Amino acid sequence: MSVLLEFSLFPTDVGESKSEYVAKSIQIIQDSGISYKMGPMGTTLEGEWDEVMGVVKQCFDQMSKSSNRIYAGIKVDYRAGKSGRLVSKIESIEKKTGKQVNT
Amino acid sequence: MSVLLEFSLFPTDVGESKSEYVAKSIQIIQDSGISYKMGPMGTTLEGEWDEVMGVVKQCFDQMSKSSNRIYAGIKVDYRAGKSGRLVSKIESIEKKTGKQVNT
Amino acid sequence: MSVLLEFSLFPTDVGESKSEYVAKSIQIIQDSGISYKMGPMGTTLEGEWDEVMGVVKQCFDQMSKSSNRIYAGIKVDYRAGKSGRLVSKIESIEKKTGKQVNT
Amino acid sequence: MSVLLEFSLFPTDVGESKSEYVAKSIQIIQDSGISYKMGPMGTTLEGEWDEVMGVVKQCFDQMSKSSNRIYAGIKVDYRAGKSGRLVSKIESIEKKTGKQVNT
Repeated sequence: MSVLLEFSLFPTDVGESKSEYVAKSIQIIQDSGISYKMGPMGTTLEGEWDEVMGVVKQCFDQMSKSSNRIYAGIKVDYRAGKSGRLVSKIESIEKKTGKQVNT
Repeated sequence: MSVLLEFSLFPTDVGESKSEYVAKSIQIIQDSGISYKMGPMGTTLEGEWDEVMGVVKQCFDQMSKSSNRIYAGIKVDYRAGKSGRLVSKIESIEKKTGKQVNT
Repeated sequence: MSVLLEFSLFPTDVGESKSEYVAKSIQIIQDSGISYKMGPMGTTLEGEWDEVMGVVKQCFDQMSKSSNRIYAGIKVDYRAGKSGRLVSKIESIEKKTGKQVNT
Repeated sequence: MSVLLEFSLFPTDVGESKSEYVAKSIQIIQDSGISYKMGPMGTTLEGEWDEVMGVVKQCFDQMSKSSNRIYAGIKVDYRAGKSGRLVSKIESIEKKTGKQVNT
């Protein structure tokens, strides 16, 4: 049962810039080998529930070493029998509108 | 490392009313014995990351038996060394404003 | 067209505690006279789209006076022809499970 | 005061596929001329609070013509004095990791 999971995870006690912390999460995601797409407001993973949640947990564990307050926003979209949706959801919109969208 | 986790989980392919499905999740939450508070837009759990995420997973597994498309919105708030926050976060606001808030 | 809107709004550049800032938002909500319920992870408002979004905007404007980085998570649930849902959504679950839920 | 706003907006009472409805929102976004990026789990807009929220409202108004239950998830990230963040947030991560990320 493959799902799409988008998450944003950041320390809220460390000053204005978060990129140093987010970079460590991206490193973990890349090292995991999971399918992902990074956007300006979150990163989307595709895989089994336990697999994608496991990656989020690893990022959280890493971040909790250097921050005392952390916030996570997570969205999951499950559709039975579908995979490859990191790409296909946007393609389906382009087909419907007949135009390219900005990605 | 105790966290607060709020989630809403619902099928998006079954018509207007979702309460039949949400009721099954609440049953799972109550049976789990975990600390929780239900609100009009989501239910908040308090516990270790794996414990609260485990309950969300159980609710998802149950729902996927009767729905082909499911959406979850999850928020996590971690604060080092704090627990009992299901209650204390609101109390802290009441102390600051000097007034009772609607809960 | 009445909606339920849950939001959490907090500065992410001011250290661990956020309650001083959240208290100002609750003050604004109470002064607005809008129907609301505060929970441990967000506050839910009920009203017309422009009305509830107007309150969120006021809270944001206030917060931006004392913080340089602010995060908001907002969820909206619209159901045609329904109101009073701050209360009725939970009652409907209690009816379905035959048990009181923790609120 | 420019913000980044990511949103996902979908009917929850119309069956498994949502792309027909999402396509109408993308059309509204493109016609508005606002800066945006579409991702697999939401679309991010950049602009003044009233401007980006106005676009979300237009999408909601359009969707409510053909659906009786609609859900929206919205995230806002404000950082004082910064703009062009649709692009710069990801570039900043690439600089920190020294590697290209998937977008």
